[in-house]
Amino acid sequence: MSSGPSPRLRLSEEKLARAALTYLAEPGDPALGALLAICSPAEVLAAIKAGMLPGTGPGCGDTPASRAALDRALGRWRARLPGLPDDERLADTSRDGIRLTCPGDAEWPGVLDQLGQARPYALWLRGQTDLRFACSRSVSMVGSRAATSYGGHVAGEIAADLGERGWAVVSGGAYGIDAAAHRGALAAEAVTIAVLACGVDYPYPAGHADLFAAIAAQGLVVSEWPPGRHPARTRFLVRNRVIAALGCGTVIVEAGERSGALNTARHAANLGKPLMAVPGPVTSAQSAGCHRIIRDWGASCVTRAADIIDLLSPLSAPDALAPGGGPGRPSQQAPDARRGPSRDDLDPDSARVLDALPARGGAGTSTIAVEAGVDLDTVLRCLGRLAGYGFIERCDRGWRLRKP
Amino acid sequence: MSSGPSPRLRLSEEKLARAALTYLAEPGDPALGALLAICSPAEVLAAIKAGMLPGTGPGCGDTPASRAALDRALGRWRARLPGLPDDERLADTSRDGIRLTCPGDAEWPGVLDQLGQARPYALWLRGQTDLRFACSRSVSMVGSRAATSYGGHVAGEIAADLGERGWAVVSGGAYGIDAAAHRGALAAEAVTIAVLACGVDYPYPAGHADLFAAIAAQGLVVSEWPPGRHPARTRFLVRNRVIAALGCGTVIVEAGERSGALNTARHAANLGKPLMAVPGPVTSAQSAGCHRIIRDWGASCVTRAADIIDLLSPLSAPDALAPGGGPGRPSQQAPDARRGPSRDDLDPDSARVLDALPARGGAGTSTIAVEAGVDLDTVLRCLGRLAGYGFIERCDRGWRLRKP
Repeated sequence: MSSGPSPRLRLSEEKLARAALTYLAEPGDPALGALLAICSPAEVLAAIKAGMLPGTGPGCGDTPASRAALDRALGRWRARLPGLPDDERLADTSRDGIRLTCPGDAEWPGVLDQLGQARPYALWLRGQTDLRFACSRSVSMVGSRAATSYGGHVAGEIAADLGERGWAVVSGGAYGIDAAAHRGALAAEAVTIAVLACGVDYPYPAGHADLFAAIAAQGLVVSEWPPGRHPARTRFLVRNRVIAALGCGTVIVEAGERSGALNTARHAANLGKPLMAVPGPVTSAQSAGCHRIIRDWGASCVTRAADIIDLLSPLSAPDALAPGGGPGRPSQQAPDARRGPSRDDLDPDSARVLDALPARGGAGTSTIAVEAGVDLDTVLRCLGRLAGYGFIERCDRGWRLRKP
Repeated sequence: MSSGPSPRLRLSEEKLARAALTYLAEPGDPALGALLAICSPAEVLAAIKAGMLPGTGPGCGDTPASRAALDRALGRWRARLPGLPDDERLADTSRDGIRLTCPGDAEWPGVLDQLGQARPYALWLRGQTDLRFACSRSVSMVGSRAATSYGGHVAGEIAADLGERGWAVVSGGAYGIDAAAHRGALAAEAVTIAVLACGVDYPYPAGHADLFAAIAAQGLVVSEWPPGRHPARTRFLVRNRVIAALGCGTVIVEAGERSGALNTARHAANLGKPLMAVPGPVTSAQSAGCHRIIRDWGASCVTRAADIIDLLSPLSAPDALAPGGGPGRPSQQAPDARRGPSRDDLDPDSARVLDALPARGGAGTSTIAVEAGVDLDTVLRCLGRLAGYGFIERCDRGWRLRKP
C-alpha cells in the first residue's frame, strides 16, 4: 500500500475544494461569490460536479433572472471540469515551491475579506514569506508600463526606502513602474509581492521570468489563478482589486490618463484605503493621471517614502489591535509600529500561543494548540496576529519565533 | 496769475493726503492702519505734521502701551517729513506716466478692502490699464527666483494660455517664475500686473527695466511705495499680501521649501482665495514647496490654465453680482464670465451709467453723473462695476465704452 503524500501536504476538504474552484471559475465571478456566501466550498464544488446548484426550489428567494444567471455560470464552470487536476495532484500543493492559502488560514490576510463576495476563493503563492505578515506593513505601488526614466527612478527609490524602513512593496509585476517598484524593494533586501493575472509559474511578461524568481526567493509571487493559467486582458482588471487590498495604501507613481493603474487606484479608494500619487512634470503625459487623481479624487500628493509612511496607520488590520480599552487610554492604544509591539500589548490568547512556540525547529498548529491549551481556531487567529506583529514566522516545520 | 495744473490732474484733499502718507509710512504699518480706521487721511496727515496724533485723552480707549506704540510710529513718520514732496508736486501725479489710485476711486479694486487695516493707503500705478477691471479676472502667479527651465517654461505657457482666455496675470516682477509669468502674458498680448516692493519707476531688479516698461505699456506696474523708493528685504514680504489680494486666486509654480512664494501663498489662503500649485518632478528641490502646500495646506494641484480657470469663480468681487435674488434662481445668478454678462444682468444704476457713456472720446465722472441722473458716488461705484464686467474702459478723457 502506498503511504501517499506526507500529512502536511494534505489539504482539508475545504481547501481542496477552494483549490479546485480556482481552476473552474474566474476570480471575482459574482455567481460563485454569492454561492460561497451561503454554502461551503465543498458543497459548491460537489454541486458543480453534479450539475445541480444549491439554492433552487421554493423559498430560496431565487428569481427567474438570478436562476438563469446561475445556470449560465454552471455551464461555464462545468466546461472547465475536464481540465481540473485530480484530488491527489490538487492536494500536493507544495510541488514546484507553490502553495495555497485560503480564507481561515493563519496566513490569510484579513484585509482581503474587505472585498466581500469578490474576495479571492484562495491565493496561490510562490515563495516562503508569510503573506499576512508581509501585508501588515505594506504599500501597493503601481503605475504605467510605459514609464519614463523619471518615473522608474522615483518608483525604485521610494520602494527601496520603504523596504529599508520595513515595509513590503506590493505591485503587479508589469514592465515600467511595477518592475521598478519590485526591483527597488529587492535592492533593499525587503519583501516584495507580485500579484499576477496568471499562474504564479507563468512568466508574463516573459522578460520578467528572472524578476519573478527573485521576488519568489525574497518575497512572494501571488495569484488567484491556478498554476499554468495564461493571462488575459480582463484578468488584469480583476487582479487589480487584490493589489489594492493587499497594501495598507496605494501609491500611483506614473499613470497616463487611461492607465490601468487608475483602476487599481479606484479599487483602493473604494476599499477606503489611503490613495496617494507621486507628482511629476506637468509636461509629461505619464504623470497626467497622477495629477488628476490628486486634483479630482483627493489622492494625497506624496514625494518620498516618509510621506507615505506618515499617511498609513501603523498596522493595517483592525484585528491586529490588542482588545480592550478605547482610544485615549495610552496603555491600550495600538503599539507604535516603528518600535514594534511588546508582549505586554498582546491579548491573553495571543500571549499564550506565543509562549507555546519553539524558538527553534518550528511547530505545527495542532501541536501549538495542545501546548497553549486553546482550540485550533484560536491558534489560527493568534498566529496570524503574531505574524502581523512580527513575533513569529513560518518555516518548513510550521511556525517558529522570529529572531529579533 | 498762473493757471496751475489742469483740473483733472488735481487731487482731492483726501487723495493728496493718501499720496503723502505713502511717503511717510511703510505699507502695512498697523499704527497707521488703526488711525485710518477712525480718522480721515487728511486728519491723520495734519496730525503727523502737527506732531500730535488724534485719539489721545480720556475716553479714547488708549492704553499706555498703545500710546507708546503710537508715539514711536509718530516719530518714524515725522522723520520722513523732510523728504515729502510739496503739495503741487504730489498733486501732479501724471508726471512720468505715473498715477495714483485710492480707496473710493472707481478704479480701486474692492478686493483690497479684504486686507482690513492692512489695506494699502493708496497704489501708485504706471500704465493705462484700469486696475479694477484687470483684477476682475486675474490670476496671481508667483514662484522661485531660482526657477528651473521646467518651471520657467510651465509658468510662461500657463500665463500665455490664461492671457489668451482673457485673464490678467499678477506677479512680483522678480527673476525666475515671476518674469516668466509676465512674459507669457505679454506674449499673449494680455494684461499683466507687476506689483513691486519699490517705486514703480525704480527698476529692481535692474535687468528687468525693459520688462517693466513692456508691462506698463500693456498692463500695469503697481506699488504701495511712492516713486523713487528703493526696495528692501522686508518690503517684499509686505508687498506679497497685495499680490495675493489682486488675484482671484494664487498659483505657485515653483517654490523651494523656504521660498518667499510660500509667503504669498499663505496670504492667499488667509484671504480665503483659491490656492493652487503646479507640481513638478519630486527630484527637484524647486518643486518641493509646491508639493508641500498641495499635501499639507490643501492647495489644488493644477497643471494647465483650464484647471485654474475651473477653480476660480467667474467674477471675483462680490459686488460685481447684480443685486437681488438668491442662489438657485437661474435668471439672477452670476453671469457666466466666459460669455460675459449682458446688459440684462446689470442693476438699474449701472445700466443708467452705461447708457450715459459716449462710444467715442470719453467722458469725465461728473459729466456722466449729470447725464445718468445719479450722484457722483453712485457713478464711481457703477463705473468700477462696469469696468469689472468689461463694458467700459479708461481713456485719456475719462471713460468710454469698450469695443466688443
